[in-house]
Amino acid sequence: MSADNEEQQIREIVLTWISATAEGDLDRVLGLMAEDVVFLSAGQPPLRGRDAFESVSRSMAGKMRFEGPPDIREIHVAGDYAFCWTRLHVTATPRDEGLPIRRAGDVFSVFRKEQDGRWRLFRDANMLARV
Amino acid sequence: MSADNEEQQIREIVLTWISATAEGDLDRVLGLMAEDVVFLSAGQPPLRGRDAFESVSRSMAGKMRFEGPPDIREIHVAGDYAFCWTRLHVTATPRDEGLPIRRAGDVFSVFRKEQDGRWRLFRDANMLARV
Repeated sequence: MSADNEEQQIREIVLTWISATAEGDLDRVLGLMAEDVVFLSAGQPPLRGRDAFESVSRSMAGKMRFEGPPDIREIHVAGDYAFCWTRLHVTATPRDEGLPIRRAGDVFSVFRKEQDGRWRLFRDANMLARV
Repeated sequence: MSADNEEQQIREIVLTWISATAEGDLDRVLGLMAEDVVFLSAGQPPLRGRDAFESVSRSMAGKMRFEGPPDIREIHVAGDYAFCWTRLHVTATPRDEGLPIRRAGDVFSVFRKEQDGRWRLFRDANMLARV
């Protein structure tokens, strides 16, 4: 498969991630990440594993609506790993009451091609900050 | 060259980076990064290029002393790219007066093997936060 084609697959995962999150489709989001995924962000300990991500997400389920198209700045494919730099502007709006929270910044993600031939999120470095 | 050997080279770059920064040896630090390096961090626009890093660093030269051993959590090598997750606890102490500033958190770095066969920092996602 050509590098362009691999890049296109990574791009589709990023777009699917954003749209599935906006739709509250957690199962779809979980299918896009490796079982041993690690999420890193400022001021918080690493979130390790798909199960941990699922627990945190279920505790917030239905409470917020997330919106914001991703601006993919670059994708590099190297063997069974690929990395992607994305700039995000996200608005999280409480479904009940409260003001929208706006966050913006860079996300740096590593994807790994797994044994079934599909790319999944492996490491995620989140640098979003309140704006 | 074996993957172990490549990993060892990445490890040495990280350790050299930290010790050269502690010693204020900016030229040595600059030699460890690609000309088109990009530094990402929360709440700030991307810092693009070795020249930009040099400008920012020269403006701070001699003003602070940096200390803090890196805790390298993992290194993956994939072809001409490698990535490294490091946990840092850094204390920046003003050389003249003022209180030390402590920051801690994760740094996710991508290295690229360049034409001279040497690995250099290519992308850096900095998630350090005040502690």
